[in-house]
Amino acid sequence: MSTEITAENGKQDIWIQRHFEASKSLVFRILTEPDLIVQWQGHSFAIKSYDCKNGGFYESSHIGSDGNTYGFKGVFHEIIPDERIIKTSEFLGLPFKVIPTLEIHSLEEINTDQTKLTIQIICNSEEVRDAMVQHGMQQQFDSIFSKLDSLIKSFK
Amino acid sequence: MSTEITAENGKQDIWIQRHFEASKSLVFRILTEPDLIVQWQGHSFAIKSYDCKNGGFYESSHIGSDGNTYGFKGVFHEIIPDERIIKTSEFLGLPFKVIPTLEIHSLEEINTDQTKLTIQIICNSEEVRDAMVQHGMQQQFDSIFSKLDSLIKSFK
Repeated sequence: MSTEITAENGKQDIWIQRHFEASKSLVFRILTEPDLIVQWQGHSFAIKSYDCKNGGFYESSHIGSDGNTYGFKGVFHEIIPDERIIKTSEFLGLPFKVIPTLEIHSLEEINTDQTKLTIQIICNSEEVRDAMVQHGMQQQFDSIFSKLDSLIKSFK
Repeated sequence: MSTEITAENGKQDIWIQRHFEASKSLVFRILTEPDLIVQWQGHSFAIKSYDCKNGGFYESSHIGSDGNTYGFKGVFHEIIPDERIIKTSEFLGLPFKVIPTLEIHSLEEINTDQTKLTIQIICNSEEVRDAMVQHGMQQQFDSIFSKLDSLIKSFK
């Protein structure tokens, strides 16, 4: 399976699309249950806070390839089980403060055992968007999603 | 004072800029304290929920010019007193579900008694953005901000 990343010129958003060999409900569980999230995120990934409900707060940390500690924090605007997750996401650990993105994660049933995940990441500017894409985004998603594939196989 | 609304072609965001004859701290109070918010919003405006802190939820309702009830709900991603409010905002009351916007409200001191408010509203698409702007946005902000001016005068 390949991860398709689209960042149209002049726009402020990124579209990420990927198919998984699993039902919508399993993909949703893997994306939202802390015990499962830590299994497909990198080994240094730690959940510091995780309240997966409308208005809930979350924060995670991980060690970057440069050895420094980074993280993400945000709030869930809305969770629609098996369908959609809308949240803010702020990257932590840079020497300057960044504006959060708005992220919409949508699940679409291709068939009972195949699901399409679409992530729209909306940035405050095209420049910020481009910096994110150019910062190894394709590799990161390829790596994370292949771990997610492995986790899905363990359910079969 | 005039409200400057900018929606650049091809972008997904709206920039709203307005000066107020008040200190940053007074403008911040007027934008965030429920007792003050209801004074500059329209007479039908009601706060249903309002937890003005990082990760806090809010919801309001109002009667539109068509007599129907509409509203806004969202979560505060971050509140920096006297400086910045970052939140999601979802318009309620339409026959279809809409994707929330990400809003960044920033205050800048022009002098001790004059403050510039900048609101960046980031939409999930240019089409949604354009629909918002064309739906009487200039009139709405002109009307609301002139009430805000009156409220500021009452503090002097």
